[in-house]
Amino acid sequence: MAGRSKLQHGVPISFGYKIAVWLDQISRTRLGLARALEEASILQLGGALGTLAALRADGMEVRRRLALRLSLAEPDISWHASRDRMAALAGAVVALLAALAKLAVDVAHLMSTEVEELREPAAAGRGSSSTMPQKRNPVICEAIIEAARSVQHVPGVILGAMLQEHERGIGHCYRERVALSEAVQQLSGAVTLTEDLLAGLEVDEGRMARNLTLTGGLIHAEAMMIHLSDRIGRIEAHRVLHEVARRVSETGADLGAALQEVSAIELPERALGFESQMDAAQAMIERVLETVALNQHGRG
Amino acid sequence: MAGRSKLQHGVPISFGYKIAVWLDQISRTRLGLARALEEASILQLGGALGTLAALRADGMEVRRRLALRLSLAEPDISWHASRDRMAALAGAVVALLAALAKLAVDVAHLMSTEVEELREPAAAGRGSSSTMPQKRNPVICEAIIEAARSVQHVPGVILGAMLQEHERGIGHCYRERVALSEAVQQLSGAVTLTEDLLAGLEVDEGRMARNLTLTGGLIHAEAMMIHLSDRIGRIEAHRVLHEVARRVSETGADLGAALQEVSAIELPERALGFESQMDAAQAMIERVLETVALNQHGRG
Amino acid sequence: MAGRSKLQHGVPISFGYKIAVWLDQISRTRLGLARALEEASILQLGGALGTLAALRADGMEVRRRLALRLSLAEPDISWHASRDRMAALAGAVVALLAALAKLAVDVAHLMSTEVEELREPAAAGRGSSSTMPQKRNPVICEAIIEAARSVQHVPGVILGAMLQEHERGIGHCYRERVALSEAVQQLSGAVTLTEDLLAGLEVDEGRMARNLTLTGGLIHAEAMMIHLSDRIGRIEAHRVLHEVARRVSETGADLGAALQEVSAIELPERALGFESQMDAAQAMIERVLETVALNQHGRG
Amino acid sequence: MAGRSKLQHGVPISFGYKIAVWLDQISRTRLGLARALEEASILQLGGALGTLAALRADGMEVRRRLALRLSLAEPDISWHASRDRMAALAGAVVALLAALAKLAVDVAHLMSTEVEELREPAAAGRGSSSTMPQKRNPVICEAIIEAARSVQHVPGVILGAMLQEHERGIGHCYRERVALSEAVQQLSGAVTLTEDLLAGLEVDEGRMARNLTLTGGLIHAEAMMIHLSDRIGRIEAHRVLHEVARRVSETGADLGAALQEVSAIELPERALGFESQMDAAQAMIERVLETVALNQHGRG
Repeated sequence: MAGRSKLQHGVPISFGYKIAVWLDQISRTRLGLARALEEASILQLGGALGTLAALRADGMEVRRRLALRLSLAEPDISWHASRDRMAALAGAVVALLAALAKLAVDVAHLMSTEVEELREPAAAGRGSSSTMPQKRNPVICEAIIEAARSVQHVPGVILGAMLQEHERGIGHCYRERVALSEAVQQLSGAVTLTEDLLAGLEVDEGRMARNLTLTGGLIHAEAMMIHLSDRIGRIEAHRVLHEVARRVSETGADLGAALQEVSAIELPERALGFESQMDAAQAMIERVLETVALNQHGRG
Repeated sequence: MAGRSKLQHGVPISFGYKIAVWLDQISRTRLGLARALEEASILQLGGALGTLAALRADGMEVRRRLALRLSLAEPDISWHASRDRMAALAGAVVALLAALAKLAVDVAHLMSTEVEELREPAAAGRGSSSTMPQKRNPVICEAIIEAARSVQHVPGVILGAMLQEHERGIGHCYRERVALSEAVQQLSGAVTLTEDLLAGLEVDEGRMARNLTLTGGLIHAEAMMIHLSDRIGRIEAHRVLHEVARRVSETGADLGAALQEVSAIELPERALGFESQMDAAQAMIERVLETVALNQHGRG
Repeated sequence: MAGRSKLQHGVPISFGYKIAVWLDQISRTRLGLARALEEASILQLGGALGTLAALRADGMEVRRRLALRLSLAEPDISWHASRDRMAALAGAVVALLAALAKLAVDVAHLMSTEVEELREPAAAGRGSSSTMPQKRNPVICEAIIEAARSVQHVPGVILGAMLQEHERGIGHCYRERVALSEAVQQLSGAVTLTEDLLAGLEVDEGRMARNLTLTGGLIHAEAMMIHLSDRIGRIEAHRVLHEVARRVSETGADLGAALQEVSAIELPERALGFESQMDAAQAMIERVLETVALNQHGRG
Repeated sequence: MAGRSKLQHGVPISFGYKIAVWLDQISRTRLGLARALEEASILQLGGALGTLAALRADGMEVRRRLALRLSLAEPDISWHASRDRMAALAGAVVALLAALAKLAVDVAHLMSTEVEELREPAAAGRGSSSTMPQKRNPVICEAIIEAARSVQHVPGVILGAMLQEHERGIGHCYRERVALSEAVQQLSGAVTLTEDLLAGLEVDEGRMARNLTLTGGLIHAEAMMIHLSDRIGRIEAHRVLHEVARRVSETGADLGAALQEVSAIELPERALGFESQMDAAQAMIERVLETVALNQHGRG
């Protein structure tokens, strides 16, 4: 399929490569969230201002036993006014949400009328429009994107709450809880939606292949330039290619034909082939899968 | 010194306890930054859209060797459009800044005219006012606080940039660099300022002790209630204490005297003593110091 | 051209309609900025804390004369710590920037390889890619979008600075100036870029017309349903239309032909015509132009 | 009472001056909200994508009549994707909230144990602490501050939603409504709380006067310098004053006595008097009251 930069076709990629990029980021932000959650799972028991004064000599022992019963870590010192772990947790929640939303942004664009390489799973009554009955709207994607955007300010809220006065500040603690729980709810919804989306995603391979040809072969311009450079040097290759690109754009000529008109060089079939451009990408996909398998094993 | 909640005196703490809380958070966010930096120190070499197509069969080997030469980790897959590590890095930079600014917020308030327990180091021309020559302004504190606030939006910027289209999106990458480098600059400045601030911080122990008596002993109300509860039960202790607190507030009576008027119970000297309320706090301070020493050793 | 909702074709619009929507919002946010600027052009002269104490009995008269000389309005009272006008100014600057960026978002998508209805003006060396020579990137659009996004946090910064203590707070005033001046610089750049973009925008009317047919006429489904409803009632019209839409989508049949197969009703040519769907839109365009002309006249 | 800059005493102000500054900003942001609300009270009726195509030739007339029945203004053109009025409305809501929160920030600090110039109205069970029975917490202030902070990101949300694609974008419209309605709810709560706060605010005039003397008269240093400058020139006045300030700070001497030791100049009683420093401030207060009265009349 077409790889896209700034919504322009760049070089070919495979759909598997795109999925591996999604997976890589989702997997990493998910581990990041697990780590942040573990680091934030730490007992808060400090009494009024953290000193455990009300428990006198028993304070530390009571704290130790309570942590044990709740299976929470014990902090070195009370953290009433040290909100860094909560800020990190919020950052991790929102990062995983953003990783899901990146996937949704891609799918929504690949569903657009002019592209149509993907479609959300059909479901009775979902994604249709009351006034425009022909539409299949990216409603799942939209809900995921809104979920991510609606809590993107939350890490900033808690980072702001870190600037609080003394042992307990004014005007920070209620909204921290509201903001963090809202972020977790949005994440929970987005995870379910993403599972639905991926479980029934319709992939139009034929359309992917056809879109790849939309530029009359110019999507292979980079590959051609590399090939020519080996033979006639980079400067000359660049000149030839610009002329070829101009012809293809202006006359709608085929890339191979245009090259023949401009230069005597023959391009072997494989030079512009999809496989020759995907060697490294394929290796990267495998590495992602290995890492994900390893991480799941580690957690199993 | 007085522990403060919502700017009200709560229970006694020590200045060492306050410093240990600062240190705990600064130390942890500093480790968090080191970790985020390490995780973000990963090679980006993917060509136009990440597939390394231009290097054909050599792509992965070239990438491996370059990573080696630059002492950077090798990614599983290209991350042109996967900005999660940069978002985490920004979060860590801003969290450390916020930890420094929390300290500055506390110092600035402790420098206020009515409190005056601390003073920034004096320096020729610094912190004086052109129109109000008597003032010693918290200028270092203010600069640290401004540094933190001025980049608090940066994690949100990069979390937002995670929602970009396909292999490279539109309108995200330049501002990510600008925002992140601005955050690092502000951190760098704030670290230097905090060192200056702490190196010359003037501590007025006498004033700390005097401020502790501002409420006529009511700062020990919690300790007194605990003590009374052991003897007369929690319900009765609460009733007695409310009456005592009312007398102290309204007549300016001493806490001990007021208690004698209300109840026959004698409070042993130690009951309201500073030490009896600081047992656990002292243990916590030691734990913080151990952890910090351990971390520094680990890095040494 | 195709009107688009959630990147799906909805109903037909004209390019003029799209431009009028841009113009309407740009014109209104521009007036909003002019108003905010005027309301913020107000003298700040209050001495140390706003009371003009140093000028004793002459304070108000000095302030009046200075305002006159600087052609600034006189405030009722000093506003050292009342930053609402600055917050409103920042909001207005960023709103105009966002109005320009909305235009750029639309143009960038209309430049995408699959759509290609618009192109940024060609300029030597601009928008080409070093590795992908065939591309015409939306570089002007991208710069406008980045400009808008990079200062979107600024109103929040100043709204935050409104929560400052007493006659002058701590840690707000330097970053207010930095943030506001950054926003103005970004606006200045974006205005110039938008002028460049619009002055040389290449419009491919043929492609707009062809894209309108991409759905086999289904973009006229709403118009057809309205027409059918007049004749056979809304319920039956909806049933017929769903069947027609299914046939068009699955068999690639023409909308008119599919209707003939499903129903005996004839659609008059005009029913699905572009003009019949643009009556109101055309009237709206004219109103926008009148308002803009009026506003420019009023300022002339 | 003491005027404060960066939490340091600066020059004297009156409590009336502080209230007038609050009132000035609250009154202005309230008018700003009324204006933004009026400008946002505009009919949205455009059908699927704003063109009113479904109503064919009747579109504009239907729209005109509906606007009349709903007492809403008619837009020049549909604004499905032009969210500037909503952004301005959000900005105005949050600005009024911030103006209320500025008041709450001041009151909370003036309630702090070391200052105690103000107290929130007492109410059974409100503001007391379960573990620290002596406290009178600034609970109303805190709720107002939290309300303001919890929606400070809302204008940014809607400014961000302005960058949406075409006639309706993806992933912006639900959260706009949620965010805006949340801001309005928080404002509504904060207005009620502020009324409660002001209705029962306890003002300790004696404490205000005593706090004014905390610096041994140095709060009048500016006034003294002005007075001296008239007699011995600004350079010499500055030198004298520094010496005086040093003596007062170090020895706790009275300002007048210290001046006598340093210089032969006699300060007339009125020179350092409160009234001589409040001439302009008093005039400003009256202007604020006039403007507010005028605005209320205009709305009556």
